Amino acid sequence: MRRIILVEAPDAVGLVYKTTGVFFDLALNIVSTDEFVEPKEKRFFMRAEVVGEADNQTLTDLLKQRLPEEAVVRVETKRPKNIVIMATKESHCLGDLLIRHYAGELNANILGVIANHETLRPLVEKFEIPFTCVPHEGLSRLDHEALVRKEIDPYEPEYIVLAKYMRVLSPEFVAAYPRRLVNIHHSFLPAFIGANPYRQAWQRGVKVIGATSHLVTDDLDAGPIIAQQVLPVTHSHSARDMAMAGRDVEKITLATALKLVFEDRVMVHKNRTIIFE
Amino acid sequence: MRRIILVEAPDAVGLVYKTTGVFFDLALNIVSTDEFVEPKEKRFFMRAEVVGEADNQTLTDLLKQRLPEEAVVRVETKRPKNIVIMATKESHCLGDLLIRHYAGELNANILGVIANHETLRPLVEKFEIPFTCVPHEGLSRLDHEALVRKEIDPYEPEYIVLAKYMRVLSPEFVAAYPRRLVNIHHSFLPAFIGANPYRQAWQRGVKVIGATSHLVTDDLDAGPIIAQQVLPVTHSHSARDMAMAGRDVEKITLATALKLVFEDRVMVHKNRTIIFE
Amino acid sequence: MRRIILVEAPDAVGLVYKTTGVFFDLALNIVSTDEFVEPKEKRFFMRAEVVGEADNQTLTDLLKQRLPEEAVVRVETKRPKNIVIMATKESHCLGDLLIRHYAGELNANILGVIANHETLRPLVEKFEIPFTCVPHEGLSRLDHEALVRKEIDPYEPEYIVLAKYMRVLSPEFVAAYPRRLVNIHHSFLPAFIGANPYRQAWQRGVKVIGATSHLVTDDLDAGPIIAQQVLPVTHSHSARDMAMAGRDVEKITLATALKLVFEDRVMVHKNRTIIFE
Amino acid sequence: MRRIILVEAPDAVGLVYKTTGVFFDLALNIVSTDEFVEPKEKRFFMRAEVVGEADNQTLTDLLKQRLPEEAVVRVETKRPKNIVIMATKESHCLGDLLIRHYAGELNANILGVIANHETLRPLVEKFEIPFTCVPHEGLSRLDHEALVRKEIDPYEPEYIVLAKYMRVLSPEFVAAYPRRLVNIHHSFLPAFIGANPYRQAWQRGVKVIGATSHLVTDDLDAGPIIAQQVLPVTHSHSARDMAMAGRDVEKITLATALKLVFEDRVMVHKNRTIIFE
Repeated sequence: MRRIILVEAPDAVGLVYKTTGVFFDLALNIVSTDEFVEPKEKRFFMRAEVVGEADNQTLTDLLKQRLPEEAVVRVETKRPKNIVIMATKESHCLGDLLIRHYAGELNANILGVIANHETLRPLVEKFEIPFTCVPHEGLSRLDHEALVRKEIDPYEPEYIVLAKYMRVLSPEFVAAYPRRLVNIHHSFLPAFIGANPYRQAWQRGVKVIGATSHLVTDDLDAGPIIAQQVLPVTHSHSARDMAMAGRDVEKITLATALKLVFEDRVMVHKNRTIIFE
Repeated sequence: MRRIILVEAPDAVGLVYKTTGVFFDLALNIVSTDEFVEPKEKRFFMRAEVVGEADNQTLTDLLKQRLPEEAVVRVETKRPKNIVIMATKESHCLGDLLIRHYAGELNANILGVIANHETLRPLVEKFEIPFTCVPHEGLSRLDHEALVRKEIDPYEPEYIVLAKYMRVLSPEFVAAYPRRLVNIHHSFLPAFIGANPYRQAWQRGVKVIGATSHLVTDDLDAGPIIAQQVLPVTHSHSARDMAMAGRDVEKITLATALKLVFEDRVMVHKNRTIIFE
Repeated sequence: MRRIILVEAPDAVGLVYKTTGVFFDLALNIVSTDEFVEPKEKRFFMRAEVVGEADNQTLTDLLKQRLPEEAVVRVETKRPKNIVIMATKESHCLGDLLIRHYAGELNANILGVIANHETLRPLVEKFEIPFTCVPHEGLSRLDHEALVRKEIDPYEPEYIVLAKYMRVLSPEFVAAYPRRLVNIHHSFLPAFIGANPYRQAWQRGVKVIGATSHLVTDDLDAGPIIAQQVLPVTHSHSARDMAMAGRDVEKITLATALKLVFEDRVMVHKNRTIIFE
Repeated sequence: MRRIILVEAPDAVGLVYKTTGVFFDLALNIVSTDEFVEPKEKRFFMRAEVVGEADNQTLTDLLKQRLPEEAVVRVETKRPKNIVIMATKESHCLGDLLIRHYAGELNANILGVIANHETLRPLVEKFEIPFTCVPHEGLSRLDHEALVRKEIDPYEPEYIVLAKYMRVLSPEFVAAYPRRLVNIHHSFLPAFIGANPYRQAWQRGVKVIGATSHLVTDDLDAGPIIAQQVLPVTHSHSARDMAMAGRDVEKITLATALKLVFEDRVMVHKNRTIIFE
């Protein structure tokens, strides 16, 4: 059995030694380990992948026992995550995830897709995945989100993927799924926050556009960044051309970020991610 | 003799036909032509490189005669531009330009280097290029700039290259050299305008940093962008590491932009560049 | 109506002038033009997009009349191309094309998919596109290809896209569809020609892998290259990891090449492409 | 004091634990550690950076004592390496290294430059670095190399950097400096091995060119690769244009590789590098 161990603690001499000592005592073989010490606040982060027979409880208990009290320890069995996808009308990110899921390459089970329009229903249902439309017309943001949450929660998803879900989420909604909402934004943040980033990019006359996948926090487009990719453009790209060209970067950036999240490679410290690739 | 012809005009049927008709009549052979029509305002831009014997005046006159009255026509003989470089203390961009100049690859004559510190004097003088230090201590911005201009103007440079010149320029200074000031900014604008962009980038936790070369206008870091390049970074890059890594992107981006400018490949429409590569 | 005009000829003074003269006389407005003169053999290539009412025949006739006799002229109405896709078992390239087609972004009509295995049938049939399996077991290459051609030809496709079709094609097959076969090869050619390029890449210890989309000629993996993209890898990538990571580059590179082909932006001179973007 | 510890051994349970146990016992604080297990041959590689007071000998002895007998242990104090540069006529790589050295950014002391032509003498001597020309005219390869080695060896360099040294080295020469010769080759190997890679690239019509920095072995251009970078090109690039454009990639790739080598981040297993960034 393959397990992932994540440790976070105030830095101290011996943290790697003590952690790998537990692995040694339980005869767990290390497949890979990565450490990082945030230099400003001297905070230690570690991810290890181990193979062996010991059970999760024993492993967790031993780690907690030997590591300093303030250490945060997480032990995960390597397995596909359960997710729900939210979308609006655009098919490129969702379609890409559906194809990866179909081919067994997503490392996740798509439990359902929830959208605020009917547009994507035929595409989703081709893949025999439940599609629910929760229209937002005539509803306040909070009322609409209450309905959405009623659809999400029975799935008990570990992550909710915003695959071009084009509505701003309320702090209440975000608070309900802390560090579990993964978004794709169609600019290389922090450039072009908010609506219509390709139009903003065109107006500014940039020569590079991009996409950013991030965890969602209260602050619009300001959550911890997981992955960013860019694409050169020229004066001959209209805002619409940029949007067309940007689709490929968006879908690849989202898929890249999800791979990292689903393999428990993303740790968060304040507003920054530590990514153990 | 090789010449570059730049034409800008309100779009109309026959502009390419009329322009190339002049070349045909003067037996000028086209090496390359590029056109672009700005679709919003229907504005036509064209760059042609031609080889042949006709003189510049005849060529210009014929083009003005046949093209619509509103057309702006520029005829340039292909040759190295005369430039002055401004710098502060950092050597990576300036050093890169000095090496290219030394190897005959800059497509420009560096007439002199002007800095507000003495730091770079030994480097510049190795290459037998005049170095002038105009310290800014104890001077108002305008008084300092007046002294700088006194040093620049006798050189009669066609372009002034800001190779990590770390002082903000006044609108008066900018107005004195319209579309002739080329700057390198150490972020992929419009992200991280202003001071200390690498610290800003670190704080935001971006996964991509970059550099932007642009023409300078009154508005800080908001001038028409010529070239942008990026570089991936990780959580393990401190702001200082980003600055170190960013140096290579800065120097290459500046050199790329200068190549385009010195070969008359950059046209400007409002705040956007048209680049004919 | 929007039309694309492609001209190829021995270089001579006045070719652009004469071509755009025809547009002028027919009151066709130029949306864009691009020219290239191959400097070794002085061969002229031009692509123009024009808008206006004249019919294709008149346009073609006038161009042939005014241009030198040796000129090759092609006039295309801008419209989706009719294509057939060939595949084997892998779904990433095919799936990506199916999603683009579904979203109306492929600029082509997929008339059918032909594979040498049944694996991909369920995926293709989700999208209501005819799927034909032509198994190759027990057949000689030529016999198998004869059966494949019987399936292809009734569709009368303009292009045949090899979306990870994993069998080598005979010169006879290639000759039947000159410049109409577009392939994706999973390496940055000419590195790692032939079978198992990711294993070859792993063995060589490269730090960059890539994909190449090219027109198919008799010579295995040696046809004119349309598009290439790359991806950094590290020592920690096994050959299998490279193959996984490479899928995204493969599908994006193929889609990029097809966009160029379907918009008539690819001209061929000997074994090299001229791409008018 | 900051030290770098490199460990290589047949994989076994407890290697990280035992290594970090030594650090713990000597009160050395880990700044970073990286491990890799080559999965085919189960070979373990580790790099650690530690801070603390223990002396190198004690550290080395303890590691050897506790790790399996077959383990290879290397302890390095973090400090600039002593190097000699070899070149021919081209200035872009050498000039870039001279500027970095001048700015204190190379992490190495350039003890001298040896070339087979006089061309680069003025450039090198500007920086007050000894330049020696060892002309090869009229000499056999081995005789010439014997003279070169007579110039190199008194410097006792840790690494020899081939900054566009355009002569093939004999196996004897290579054997004299095992894993200490770093070369820059002007193609993304293994494409375009040998002479005139840009011409080869032009002939093949590639859309991407690149550069490769590698350790030199007997086999021409086949040594372990340290770094590779690429650059898009188009049909309009002649072989000469590619060579011009390629210079920037060459110099940046070489500098990138040298940074890794000089910080003891490169381990070698057979013909592949393990790079701990």
